[in-house]
Amino acid sequence: MSKDKVQIFDTTLRDGEQVPGCKLDTEQKLVIAERLDQLGVDIIEAGFPISSPGDFSSVTQIAQVVKNATVCGLTRAVKKDIEVAAEALKPAKTPRIHTGIGTSDSHIKHKFNSNRDAIIERAVQAVSYAKTFVEDVEFYAEDAGRTENEFLARVCEAVVKAGATVLNIPDTTGYCLPEEYGAKMKYLKENVKGIHKATLSCHCHNDLGLATANSISGVINGARQIECTINGIGERAGNTSLEEVVMILRQHPYLGLDTNINSRLLYDTSQMVSQKMGMMVQPNKAIVGANAFAHSSGIHQDGVIKNRETYEIIDPEDVGVTESSIVLTARSGRAALAYRAKKVGYELTKTQLDGVYEEFLKFADRKKEVLDEDIHEIIEASNLNTESLT
Amino acid sequence: MSKDKVQIFDTTLRDGEQVPGCKLDTEQKLVIAERLDQLGVDIIEAGFPISSPGDFSSVTQIAQVVKNATVCGLTRAVKKDIEVAAEALKPAKTPRIHTGIGTSDSHIKHKFNSNRDAIIERAVQAVSYAKTFVEDVEFYAEDAGRTENEFLARVCEAVVKAGATVLNIPDTTGYCLPEEYGAKMKYLKENVKGIHKATLSCHCHNDLGLATANSISGVINGARQIECTINGIGERAGNTSLEEVVMILRQHPYLGLDTNINSRLLYDTSQMVSQKMGMMVQPNKAIVGANAFAHSSGIHQDGVIKNRETYEIIDPEDVGVTESSIVLTARSGRAALAYRAKKVGYELTKTQLDGVYEEFLKFADRKKEVLDEDIHEIIEASNLNTESLT
Repeated sequence: MSKDKVQIFDTTLRDGEQVPGCKLDTEQKLVIAERLDQLGVDIIEAGFPISSPGDFSSVTQIAQVVKNATVCGLTRAVKKDIEVAAEALKPAKTPRIHTGIGTSDSHIKHKFNSNRDAIIERAVQAVSYAKTFVEDVEFYAEDAGRTENEFLARVCEAVVKAGATVLNIPDTTGYCLPEEYGAKMKYLKENVKGIHKATLSCHCHNDLGLATANSISGVINGARQIECTINGIGERAGNTSLEEVVMILRQHPYLGLDTNINSRLLYDTSQMVSQKMGMMVQPNKAIVGANAFAHSSGIHQDGVIKNRETYEIIDPEDVGVTESSIVLTARSGRAALAYRAKKVGYELTKTQLDGVYEEFLKFADRKKEVLDEDIHEIIEASNLNTESLT
Repeated sequence: MSKDKVQIFDTTLRDGEQVPGCKLDTEQKLVIAERLDQLGVDIIEAGFPISSPGDFSSVTQIAQVVKNATVCGLTRAVKKDIEVAAEALKPAKTPRIHTGIGTSDSHIKHKFNSNRDAIIERAVQAVSYAKTFVEDVEFYAEDAGRTENEFLARVCEAVVKAGATVLNIPDTTGYCLPEEYGAKMKYLKENVKGIHKATLSCHCHNDLGLATANSISGVINGARQIECTINGIGERAGNTSLEEVVMILRQHPYLGLDTNINSRLLYDTSQMVSQKMGMMVQPNKAIVGANAFAHSSGIHQDGVIKNRETYEIIDPEDVGVTESSIVLTARSGRAALAYRAKKVGYELTKTQLDGVYEEFLKFADRKKEVLDEDIHEIIEASNLNTESLT
């Protein structure tokens, strides 16, 4: 089956960078941008050029070094923002301006003290003005997650008519449930005149832990771009995790969707971004956490030793992790102990294993993790006739 | 609208504890168990009694101290396991034995070298035997996520007939998509004879970042128990995060579902478990991460200052976080600067703010985060006539 491509729009350097305590300097951003380009992301959102002179300069330099990806700059629906972004993106081979405005009643009332018609007018003006600088203009309907579908469709129709090539439907507060977010995409796909001229894009936040599921629901229902960050970093609880959506599509081929990402670079890229940003990745993070492929319970280890696919759906090598690991703790069983004992040179018979296992449990109840060097000590303490061990 | 209760089955001390590098000693487990009881979880899975003498003793002591929750112990579908669990649970006011066996073809073939009928027989024997010790017996169909629905329904029907009170449907490898997992629950609800006598339970793993979404899809489709851990810890990429499912149900009242959790204890409980286990929580973790309620970008800060609900759906106090924070970085706007300047004593006019903001950006481009004490320096450097400042 030939698969539809889902564009990966990486916003690690823009929405991801908007995090207390993790501002990157330009040099670090350039290294990350080059890596994202190698990873195969389709669009790199490099920054918000008007926000500060430093960010302007970062966007310009990223636009110079990126070879394959489209380079994108964020703006508000404000003339000056768009001019400054266009200027910053000048060196890019394929530039994109990302402009937009809040469309939910909460944003229209509290943020803009405005009304629906005036918001549509500003949206159209912003897109039209951006089009005078670049061909590729993405429009974001901020807080689309809480915007009534009918009005959202009106906004989308108007900006597509003004030339928007991509429609970003952000769940800004991370409020939507997957079904609801998917239904929103489906509604737009079916009700916006001219929708075939634009790509619908998912931009989800993780406030309730649903960013990944919402993005997947979005592409199942017609979106063809996902905005995401390495390690899911970003303001508050962060954005959609790039590594998660990429591997979900790869692990569910029947969806008929795939990305251009070279998944073997995922783990290394995760580590690089975590180190440069000083933002740690928790051990139980999906795909790229330190324990993502580590088995410590007896029931699981036994299964994995017999056949990896009993408990692992992803081959660790596919995401750049060298091997899954069998860690010995007090929750480990005989199979794991025998497996690791063999690795350090002891081939135990069933009876021998019983004796060693008893000693092992006493040791493991005291110690969090049993290392290879401990195995020698345990075998000695279990008073086996070690000469009979091969 | 009166809401259906979803039981919260906390497995922090069993499935959560199965993590390399985070084994807890009995004393630490007791403190956590007492806190989980205060938090309002309905069931505490205390351990896997046969796995080691230390774990047996932990389960017994937890059974002694827990006042309200049901205390549960894990077993395989093995006589000896069940006897040992029953013994460990003796002091519990309301004990539950959790027994089960793998039901997917992968598990039946590679793990048990068995066949479907023999597996059903072992399942029924285990449940019947457990019923001789306790009234409340939960059955897990391991790898249910990859078990064909028709066979899974046959297994469920047989164990309900044998007296199982809860049917745990684990997505052991974290493979399911939300729609698929929900459809599985719906199928069981509609096709298992006697299903009204048992509670369907969601047990999801996070290998693809979907554990939370899958559990929510499960309860929308008829399950009434969620198995989860504090901070989502657990083997590999971990389990469903308790704090996420609880807050999703609370934030979406139209689902008509709620839990007994006292959400104001969530943040503190998260910190306690993280410290005792030595398992850090990443800053961008939903609900309980350090940045979950921190705003640093100008666009967002401006919105939050005008009206909190523009960007926040959860009142931080509802999960025990004292306040949302406005952090100053190079991505912050004038509104945030004015807000924080006012907090440290400067009431700036619009013209004054323009001058100070320019100085602020230069400063913030050099420094990752601007603190209150820096504001004095910035205002001095901007050469305002500070006597005019109030």
